[in-house]
Amino acid sequence: MNMDTRLLDSIQKDDLEALGIGAGILGTGGGGHPRVGKLRLLTLLEDDEYPNTVDIIQPTDLAADATVASVGGMGAPTIGVEKLPNGQEETNALKSIERFAGREVDALIPGEIGGVNSIVPLCVSLKTGLPVVDADGMGRAFPELQMDTFFIYGHPVNYAAISDEHGNTISYQDIDSAKRLEDFARAATVDMGGRAGYAFPLMDGEFVTEYSIPRTLSLIHELGQRVLNAQSGGGDPLGAIEETVGGQHMFTGKITDVLRRNEEGFARGEVTLGSLDNDRELTIEFQNEFLIARDNKGSLLASVPDLICLVDKDTGLPVTTDALRYGQRVAVLGVPAPELLKTDAALNVIGPQAFGYEIDYHPI
Amino acid sequence: MNMDTRLLDSIQKDDLEALGIGAGILGTGGGGHPRVGKLRLLTLLEDDEYPNTVDIIQPTDLAADATVASVGGMGAPTIGVEKLPNGQEETNALKSIERFAGREVDALIPGEIGGVNSIVPLCVSLKTGLPVVDADGMGRAFPELQMDTFFIYGHPVNYAAISDEHGNTISYQDIDSAKRLEDFARAATVDMGGRAGYAFPLMDGEFVTEYSIPRTLSLIHELGQRVLNAQSGGGDPLGAIEETVGGQHMFTGKITDVLRRNEEGFARGEVTLGSLDNDRELTIEFQNEFLIARDNKGSLLASVPDLICLVDKDTGLPVTTDALRYGQRVAVLGVPAPELLKTDAALNVIGPQAFGYEIDYHPI
Repeated sequence: MNMDTRLLDSIQKDDLEALGIGAGILGTGGGGHPRVGKLRLLTLLEDDEYPNTVDIIQPTDLAADATVASVGGMGAPTIGVEKLPNGQEETNALKSIERFAGREVDALIPGEIGGVNSIVPLCVSLKTGLPVVDADGMGRAFPELQMDTFFIYGHPVNYAAISDEHGNTISYQDIDSAKRLEDFARAATVDMGGRAGYAFPLMDGEFVTEYSIPRTLSLIHELGQRVLNAQSGGGDPLGAIEETVGGQHMFTGKITDVLRRNEEGFARGEVTLGSLDNDRELTIEFQNEFLIARDNKGSLLASVPDLICLVDKDTGLPVTTDALRYGQRVAVLGVPAPELLKTDAALNVIGPQAFGYEIDYHPI
Repeated sequence: MNMDTRLLDSIQKDDLEALGIGAGILGTGGGGHPRVGKLRLLTLLEDDEYPNTVDIIQPTDLAADATVASVGGMGAPTIGVEKLPNGQEETNALKSIERFAGREVDALIPGEIGGVNSIVPLCVSLKTGLPVVDADGMGRAFPELQMDTFFIYGHPVNYAAISDEHGNTISYQDIDSAKRLEDFARAATVDMGGRAGYAFPLMDGEFVTEYSIPRTLSLIHELGQRVLNAQSGGGDPLGAIEETVGGQHMFTGKITDVLRRNEEGFARGEVTLGSLDNDRELTIEFQNEFLIARDNKGSLLASVPDLICLVDKDTGLPVTTDALRYGQRVAVLGVPAPELLKTDAALNVIGPQAFGYEIDYHPI
């Protein structure tokens, strides 16, 4: 997105607040609350048993034959806030695929940069000593695991595992499609009480360098830091966000209506905003994440895979779909998706039609 | 059951018909149709690529430190008849737990002797060269995997795997209870289309010798053989069954009513029989297997874990719950359960109350 972003080579305690804000904004309303992840990471960073810094490496610095796995949490965001992890789930899942494959992992990568799964790999890094790649598989958040660039660009579902807070561990081998893995792992996660830690697949460095969305840990850090700077310096948080992510300010208004329905494990619904100045309205449809934004003249303003980010209009802090309520004053930003999300192969999996909308994708 | 049973040391093509009949009778109405298993085994025995005989060993001949695993099929019996296996499912599941455990299996054992899962391990034996133990974990059929003596008597759920006809393989490690494994594997089997092959757990020979139900492959073979002999020699198939399994003839009559409901993945219901001679009636409740038999005076004649076996009154051939229909003439036999199924530990898992009936177990 912004090529001037300062690249992280490590993450310390002082970086957490910024990371959480940036991850929340790129979560486009979903992806799980960064708060629980931040607390987990803070506890580890302050624990003498673990290092007080997380090593970050650039995807371009990965050895071609390095072994990389993504780790994170699976399940409904609302459950993730109430059913707290014991903190070993992702590490157990990682150990399981290492053991089965007979191969050790050299680096971790977030599966998605939006929401809590940008932070979870940092916790696993402290427990395992493995560096985290400054990149991810979505450049935002999506609800299902086949929606990451690793699977979109054909990586085999060679190894995968999920594990719960009791140590129950389920490993998957030679699964014939990522969607099938999603189905298997989703059903098991429900049986595990709605939240599990995951690790998958085993990729080599060359693949990750080519098909991950680069520099996204650095991006969320800078994004959050600039929002914090604007807040404390009396600046303009919205302007800081637009500048950092190359976004476009689409609307500012008050939430006038929220419709929700829980369907097939998703938080579906739509939110309507009314302008504070005139009779213009904006309606955004969501399925965990904000997916489609239309105005009351029927114009399509933005659609998935482009990012539709809602933030508090004054503070620039992210607003998630589950926190939407009548009367909130919010700003809506449209952010162009990374190029890897806009190819035909990607649009088949994460375009508007993949989510059931009968519209074509028109890039912002 | 009958201590005079001739012990098998191998199984050939000529034994299949007898095995299928005996497995069907001890299936107590459930356990899956032996027919598909018999066809799989016949195909392998006639294939030059595989041996033409299955090696059988007695549980008392197992080395104390031998590694033994049960293999079989999981899923709804009605699906098992229509969604044919490709034949590699159980072997793939077995290879998965061997690979994960870093340990090779020395012998196979049927998880249950009733129905198709008595035959499936014989197929896996031909593919792997491993002998099959003349024993099983139920001495009959039960619908859920935690209901075998291995788990009832406390074997840890150390390793387990299921695999489907596409090669999709799911492995389970360190699962905290057999019931939890049942829940995980059942949900995944449904996602796999309703039928999967399984392998679990990894037991040592000493445990299997102590806690399996011994000589049950020999028993179903003798049972089927004596029914066949009685049929062809003009003898009394019912008498032959009673004598072989130490059973008691409880009723003969005509099916006058069948109630079915599919609930929570089980074929539940009840069947009512009317006497051919007087106004006596018998009602049998089933959940995949026949579980409770009462007469029309309210007397409890038999209940799980004792075996309630329905057979055609003339041929002695088994009648399964899904094949019950108005007008059939059947005989009902009550067979005392093996001692390992009658301890307090066992009744907690497989007594009448475990199936939701508010009655105490009164042994036949």
